[in-house]
Amino acid sequence: MPKKIKRIAVLTSGGDSPGMNAAIRSVVRTCAYHDLECIGVYRGYEGLIEGDFKPMDARSVKGIINKGGTILKSARSKEFRTVEGRQKAYKKLVEAGIDGLVVIGGDGSFTGAMILNDEFDFPVMGIPGTIDNDIVGTTHTLGFDTALNTVVDAIDKIRDTASSHNRLFFIEVMGRDVGHIALNAGIAGGAEEILIPEEDLGLDRLVESLRRSRKSGKTSSIVIVAEGDKIGKNIFELKDFVDDNMEGYDVRVSVLGHMQRGGSPSCFDRVLASRMGVKAVESLLEGKSNYMVGLQNTKMELTPFDNAIKGKTKINLELLRVSDIMST
Amino acid sequence: MPKKIKRIAVLTSGGDSPGMNAAIRSVVRTCAYHDLECIGVYRGYEGLIEGDFKPMDARSVKGIINKGGTILKSARSKEFRTVEGRQKAYKKLVEAGIDGLVVIGGDGSFTGAMILNDEFDFPVMGIPGTIDNDIVGTTHTLGFDTALNTVVDAIDKIRDTASSHNRLFFIEVMGRDVGHIALNAGIAGGAEEILIPEEDLGLDRLVESLRRSRKSGKTSSIVIVAEGDKIGKNIFELKDFVDDNMEGYDVRVSVLGHMQRGGSPSCFDRVLASRMGVKAVESLLEGKSNYMVGLQNTKMELTPFDNAIKGKTKINLELLRVSDIMST
Amino acid sequence: MPKKIKRIAVLTSGGDSPGMNAAIRSVVRTCAYHDLECIGVYRGYEGLIEGDFKPMDARSVKGIINKGGTILKSARSKEFRTVEGRQKAYKKLVEAGIDGLVVIGGDGSFTGAMILNDEFDFPVMGIPGTIDNDIVGTTHTLGFDTALNTVVDAIDKIRDTASSHNRLFFIEVMGRDVGHIALNAGIAGGAEEILIPEEDLGLDRLVESLRRSRKSGKTSSIVIVAEGDKIGKNIFELKDFVDDNMEGYDVRVSVLGHMQRGGSPSCFDRVLASRMGVKAVESLLEGKSNYMVGLQNTKMELTPFDNAIKGKTKINLELLRVSDIMST
Amino acid sequence: MPKKIKRIAVLTSGGDSPGMNAAIRSVVRTCAYHDLECIGVYRGYEGLIEGDFKPMDARSVKGIINKGGTILKSARSKEFRTVEGRQKAYKKLVEAGIDGLVVIGGDGSFTGAMILNDEFDFPVMGIPGTIDNDIVGTTHTLGFDTALNTVVDAIDKIRDTASSHNRLFFIEVMGRDVGHIALNAGIAGGAEEILIPEEDLGLDRLVESLRRSRKSGKTSSIVIVAEGDKIGKNIFELKDFVDDNMEGYDVRVSVLGHMQRGGSPSCFDRVLASRMGVKAVESLLEGKSNYMVGLQNTKMELTPFDNAIKGKTKINLELLRVSDIMST
Repeated sequence: MPKKIKRIAVLTSGGDSPGMNAAIRSVVRTCAYHDLECIGVYRGYEGLIEGDFKPMDARSVKGIINKGGTILKSARSKEFRTVEGRQKAYKKLVEAGIDGLVVIGGDGSFTGAMILNDEFDFPVMGIPGTIDNDIVGTTHTLGFDTALNTVVDAIDKIRDTASSHNRLFFIEVMGRDVGHIALNAGIAGGAEEILIPEEDLGLDRLVESLRRSRKSGKTSSIVIVAEGDKIGKNIFELKDFVDDNMEGYDVRVSVLGHMQRGGSPSCFDRVLASRMGVKAVESLLEGKSNYMVGLQNTKMELTPFDNAIKGKTKINLELLRVSDIMST
Repeated sequence: MPKKIKRIAVLTSGGDSPGMNAAIRSVVRTCAYHDLECIGVYRGYEGLIEGDFKPMDARSVKGIINKGGTILKSARSKEFRTVEGRQKAYKKLVEAGIDGLVVIGGDGSFTGAMILNDEFDFPVMGIPGTIDNDIVGTTHTLGFDTALNTVVDAIDKIRDTASSHNRLFFIEVMGRDVGHIALNAGIAGGAEEILIPEEDLGLDRLVESLRRSRKSGKTSSIVIVAEGDKIGKNIFELKDFVDDNMEGYDVRVSVLGHMQRGGSPSCFDRVLASRMGVKAVESLLEGKSNYMVGLQNTKMELTPFDNAIKGKTKINLELLRVSDIMST
Repeated sequence: MPKKIKRIAVLTSGGDSPGMNAAIRSVVRTCAYHDLECIGVYRGYEGLIEGDFKPMDARSVKGIINKGGTILKSARSKEFRTVEGRQKAYKKLVEAGIDGLVVIGGDGSFTGAMILNDEFDFPVMGIPGTIDNDIVGTTHTLGFDTALNTVVDAIDKIRDTASSHNRLFFIEVMGRDVGHIALNAGIAGGAEEILIPEEDLGLDRLVESLRRSRKSGKTSSIVIVAEGDKIGKNIFELKDFVDDNMEGYDVRVSVLGHMQRGGSPSCFDRVLASRMGVKAVESLLEGKSNYMVGLQNTKMELTPFDNAIKGKTKINLELLRVSDIMST
Repeated sequence: MPKKIKRIAVLTSGGDSPGMNAAIRSVVRTCAYHDLECIGVYRGYEGLIEGDFKPMDARSVKGIINKGGTILKSARSKEFRTVEGRQKAYKKLVEAGIDGLVVIGGDGSFTGAMILNDEFDFPVMGIPGTIDNDIVGTTHTLGFDTALNTVVDAIDKIRDTASSHNRLFFIEVMGRDVGHIALNAGIAGGAEEILIPEEDLGLDRLVESLRRSRKSGKTSSIVIVAEGDKIGKNIFELKDFVDDNMEGYDVRVSVLGHMQRGGSPSCFDRVLASRMGVKAVESLLEGKSNYMVGLQNTKMELTPFDNAIKGKTKINLELLRVSDIMST
């Protein structure tokens, strides 16, 4: 029989994403609702090792649901990757009377939680917070929807100037291994072409696509490029390639960068965060451990950490096709 | 065997919603992709009766994916509710050589399309465009996500002033028969209480909730009220009730109004619109008729008009519970 | 010779406006820069009377420059209008060793400061914080620019739906005695007509203007109405009037309300707030008192409280004319 | 006596800026108001040479006041720099019966207009449209205010992630020769340091400033860098410098890029554009030529092209000081 949970800790780890604060708030308030104590851990696993803790009551998370970033801060911890580091962390947890831990972060953060659970049989629960939407077990990670709106807003602005000057823009968006941001924001931004890590288009196709687009009467074009696109050229090399091989193009490059990680979370992400926090805390209360909470269809579901980490999200082929049709 | 589709018409009908233009664009481009002609019909069924048509090619829908409203305009048509009106409309469709019709609108619009199909065996397909999310067969109607962000943005602004002055605000949002906007935006806006048509809270509970909230240390409060809330008082009567029955509150009212219908669609709505347009046109091409396209889980699915119209969406009970917990 | 200033207090009073937090931050940081202590006073004059003080250092105002509302809260104080109230306040100031007071607020707040100065020879300095732009001595009050953008954003959204349905919208904006918001936002929102307190248009002119607008081919119209417009009808009566007296209009009403007071301040308001805070503190340091800081041309200037309070801003007649021409 | 003006042409030239469409609309509507014909010229001087003209009536500029970019498109024209090119352009103007030309653009565009006026005594009037605010004779160029809000919004987002991770960000903003965007947006974004072309800070000061900032308890920092900053290192070299010479910093770089040129214009820019269009057309009607319209204090004023072009805007030293104080 699992130990009765009386005190739960929460931390954010890895790259931050919009909605993390809303998730912290939800964890804290759900604890308050169930008369549990809640402890905030600063700077992820680094703060866990150092015992950088702070008790949080319902009022302490007031006014953060609409704030980007994470009030608990985030960090990457080398020490937590060592047995010694994790032993220190476990000791701090025990000393502070903590019975369960909610980790808000990406797959690296979940790996840490899983090992902690394996080594010390410590109850852990994960909330997927990353803008990349690259985690199996949830159709939407926390921050993905907000990042999409940020990217689309930037594309809209760039299109204003692109079409005023009949220019071709390459716009780089986040996504080293996955093209979810590029694909969705590309469709929504009306991009003529979208280059993603999952698909090897080849430069020939890009060239052909641009030519066809020009022939169809388009005078400006937007090409969205995920950081990790398969063509294997970075975005400045793409520009050079077009400059060298195609005539009549005035090519510009824009790298959207870290702006994509910030900003006030969308309604979608705030609701998702609130639901995930409730589910995470109540799952710990039910004696569960080693799971990630996620959105599947319209419901909150649990996925074993192992599956969440090892799985690889697939690109939605229907979206790829829609993208092709829309650039007709 | 169904007649081969060569020319498709598209219209928007009923209250407009953000994403309708993106859906028009998608219908037009999908037609172009399949070498079909596409005809835009102005002012909904009214324009159908009058033959207010305009051929649309791929370039004619340039630059509209990010615009609110509908370039085809919308209207309600009394005449289309009569047999004579529909006969005129059918005649115009036949004269223009149109083989299928895509209707973007709500359940009233779908009823019209269904009768047209019944009476003249004319192929019709529906795209659910309404901010209310009150249509069965899709988890999200077109415009719902955008409207939520608009409402949440307004709540955020009102909270700034509410908390500066320690005030209680009643904020009315759209939703005569359904509380989807109120419930989601209320959670995302950090509302202390949410009044929806589906739930009869009773005034007592509201009063108690406000008292509890005050006791817990909150100095300002936001209560979200759907137009059609069950308490049966309008929002100004609610204010009067609190003024008369509770002490120490400085109560204000804000009715968000038509602003909720406009604005540049969110990434979510633009992608959804693009997918729905493709699915609608290609379903007509496959010889299908009398269906609405919708998002179910992560896929585009068809729902017979009959089910879409007669069904009633249910409020997500989990969200109600999350709302309760969050206002701890 | 004036007493050397070593400790300065700051408070916000009256209706809140975006940029007040940025002004608080500026006052606090300017104090820190000059090695002065800074004391925050909660809830305006109410908190002054109660001694609701909190020392603020440079770090304590971190992360507030972009937040609407006021972290010091605001309130109206009846007691401060009495001699006894002001004596209590003065006593608290002296007890806390405070040598000067910066008041962020509107003309009512400045009147309070002026009397405090008159009665006790206590150094005071004002920063004009109100969205109404109704204070003489500054071309822009703090929050005016942000409120304009909020209103224009709402008008843009409403126009989306207005033009989709060929409707006439009456939109009420703040401004009981002055039409600055209505006039500027009306021009920027492309309104066909703007009703302001300073001008008695008469209903006849409104009717004529709408008819002309209809004749010129416009199918939808936006009329901006300041709360205190001279026609003497409220916005719902205006709707009824058009419904009763003009044919073919589908009229809707939208009251923008308190949303206009909130939101993250614009760049303009943040820079203005930063400049005003510096000027206010350094003017106190120079031994000045009983002035309001303001923007005149491109410079920070001082205006005696007396002039600021008794003066009445004038509507820019050029803008009225531009508005007329634009609705051609 | 000047020839009576009956037909006026308008073009946009050089880099586009938000508000250009609002200015076009204003020129067109002011012409309509005075019963003049208005001719839109596509692609700046290039279209003038080619006679790429289109008559514009009041309705033709409907719905563009809130759109970024320019519906008339913009381009740079080598041919117009030659006498032959200008002769062609003049011939086209005469053939089309055009009596005056309004040029919306920056100083390069004004130089073209001035030479056209010198060589052919053709009436020209300029509207300063550029985000850089680098033109003498107006306190604000068209688009400057909007660009500032775009930049500040991006800084806010980046700060979310910067402070979650305790990072130092270098953010590059537009401004090759002038630091107006950097200085204003830097203050509004709460930047710790701002590097502008007008000031040679030297790397030493940057280093010292960062050290002081760290010592004062700040864990994250934002440094705004104008494209043309005086330190003479590009933003990536700045990062390398800090990486090599300072310990304990996690440095990131973000180049905001062309996004800054687009987006829906702010209320300020829309009103300014409306006023400038009226002033430009009516000045031509009064027989004036060779001037730029501008905002000075609260009025529209004319500045001879010669002064506008040769002058150099000065950085506001008060702002520099405010920036220093705010980063206390």
